[in-house]
Amino acid sequence: MTLLYEGKAKSVYETDDKNVLSIEYKDEVTAGNGEKHDFIPGKGHLNNIISAALFERLHAFGIPSHFIAKTGEASQLVKRVDIIPLEVVVRNTAAGNIVKRLGVTEGEVFETPLVEFYLKEDSLNDPIVTEDHIKLLGHGTDSNVAELKEKALAVNEVLTGIMNKMNLTLVDFKIEFGRDVEGNILLADEISPDTCRLWDKDTNENFDKDVYRNDTGSLIDTYNKFYNKLEGI
Amino acid sequence: MTLLYEGKAKSVYETDDKNVLSIEYKDEVTAGNGEKHDFIPGKGHLNNIISAALFERLHAFGIPSHFIAKTGEASQLVKRVDIIPLEVVVRNTAAGNIVKRLGVTEGEVFETPLVEFYLKEDSLNDPIVTEDHIKLLGHGTDSNVAELKEKALAVNEVLTGIMNKMNLTLVDFKIEFGRDVEGNILLADEISPDTCRLWDKDTNENFDKDVYRNDTGSLIDTYNKFYNKLEGI
Ligand SMILES: Nc1ncnc2c1ncn2[C@@H]1O[C@H](COP(=O)(O)OP(=O)(O)OP(=O)(O)O)[C@@H](O)[C@H]1O
Ligand SMILES: Nc1ncnc2c1ncn2[C@@H]1O[C@H](COP(=O)(O)OP(=O)(O)OP(=O)(O)O)[C@@H](O)[C@H]1O
Ligand SMILES: [Mg+2]
Ligand SMILES: [Mg+2]
Repeated sequence: MTLLYEGKAKSVYETDDKNVLSIEYKDEVTAGNGEKHDFIPGKGHLNNIISAALFERLHAFGIPSHFIAKTGEASQLVKRVDIIPLEVVVRNTAAGNIVKRLGVTEGEVFETPLVEFYLKEDSLNDPIVTEDHIKLLGHGTDSNVAELKEKALAVNEVLTGIMNKMNLTLVDFKIEFGRDVEGNILLADEISPDTCRLWDKDTNENFDKDVYRNDTGSLIDTYNKFYNKLEGI
Repeated sequence: MTLLYEGKAKSVYETDDKNVLSIEYKDEVTAGNGEKHDFIPGKGHLNNIISAALFERLHAFGIPSHFIAKTGEASQLVKRVDIIPLEVVVRNTAAGNIVKRLGVTEGEVFETPLVEFYLKEDSLNDPIVTEDHIKLLGHGTDSNVAELKEKALAVNEVLTGIMNKMNLTLVDFKIEFGRDVEGNILLADEISPDTCRLWDKDTNENFDKDVYRNDTGSLIDTYNKFYNKLEGI
């Protein structure tokens, strides 16, 4: 298999089918745009099975994605897309960078979910962009942006429901979209505790990568517990 | 007169009329949110006469503002407004922070003018905000934001025309708006080479505060030349 892209968390390979890629989840974890970096055996496996399970559940609730099938411990087949270079962030509750940027109170629940777009460009530190910037940079028309927002909010609805059943609050999450061969905008990349912020509804305990970012717990234990909860609902 | 607010560039005083304020332009200049700071005799006078002249010309072209009358060397009377805590930036050409933030090429002329909003909050370093952030923070409804955009673009039209006659390119500018006693949204604060980026169409020379920011010329000479050009058209 030809390596197409080696990212911080995943490697992407071409397959015999030009419209299908294989994603290999790595045993690596980074935070702060690569400032913190560790090798954690077992992480790739956990992210792979969690992401696969979440894509399957989203599918069951009418939300299509690039996910095709799990093929190994740490690998899955996905539909190849042209990634739209935007990180789409949905926030239900204030936490993380919005608290620092805008001075809102951590834990404040937003009246309506907030959708933000960040330019996927490590060299610029993924700056936040407005809809006008997206147009200016040629990454989408008004109607593309409206579609991304709508799709992101639909993912939020379903994902919030899943997390609620697990007694977790879906605080915020980041997703990516791409265009498939037919030009349809498809949910892609990964959904896991790496890309979501999740708080236990009773204890406020983190069930996400913040345990690694803030050194407050074992990543493997946390992701394992998350996966067991998910399988239990 | 009671001092209402002492800013970096101006002091604002109450007058006998509760709906009228007196703005005193100071002989001070700062850049980089106060990192660079100097006392430049004559600056307050120049900013006052330039700002007054520009508000008068905007008025002549159908754009109302808070400006009432020049009352002294460095002071003018204005209608009191409740300032909307947003810096509204209009960009015709890429320069300054958008080049650093988004990696666009300095000097690139935008197909359509770009309107950006920054939260007026020095302690947060005036972060850029989206329309959804503005709503979330309670600083305006969708229709308020649309009105601010429309008014900013109207100012851009007229100001671009004035600068063109002076053989200057209006690269970008920052304005503020407020709500008057009747609740109308009114252009306020200041319009001057402190708040505009202006390039000579032939020589590319700066006719704005960048001469101070970048130490490339005398601020007083530049603002004087600008004022003489403005009086000459
Ligand atoms: N279906 C897909 N088709 C093509 N590319 C994909 C697909 N799904 C995800 N990708 C891309 O594969 C890469 C996954 O690698 P990884 O997430 O490790 O990257 P990264 O280090 O986070 O860097 P970045 O996400 O900023 O590119 C990402 O660039 C992601 O956008
Ligand atoms: N018509 C008006 N009514 C009330 N306040 C006004 C009016 N016009 C301008 N202002 C406010 O008066 C102040 C002018 O001071 P100055 O421009 O020096 O402030 P500053 O140091 O730039 O700080 P900032 O502009 O961030 O408040 C600003 O806060 C501005 O918003
Ligand atoms: Mg990634
Ligand atoms: Mg000011």
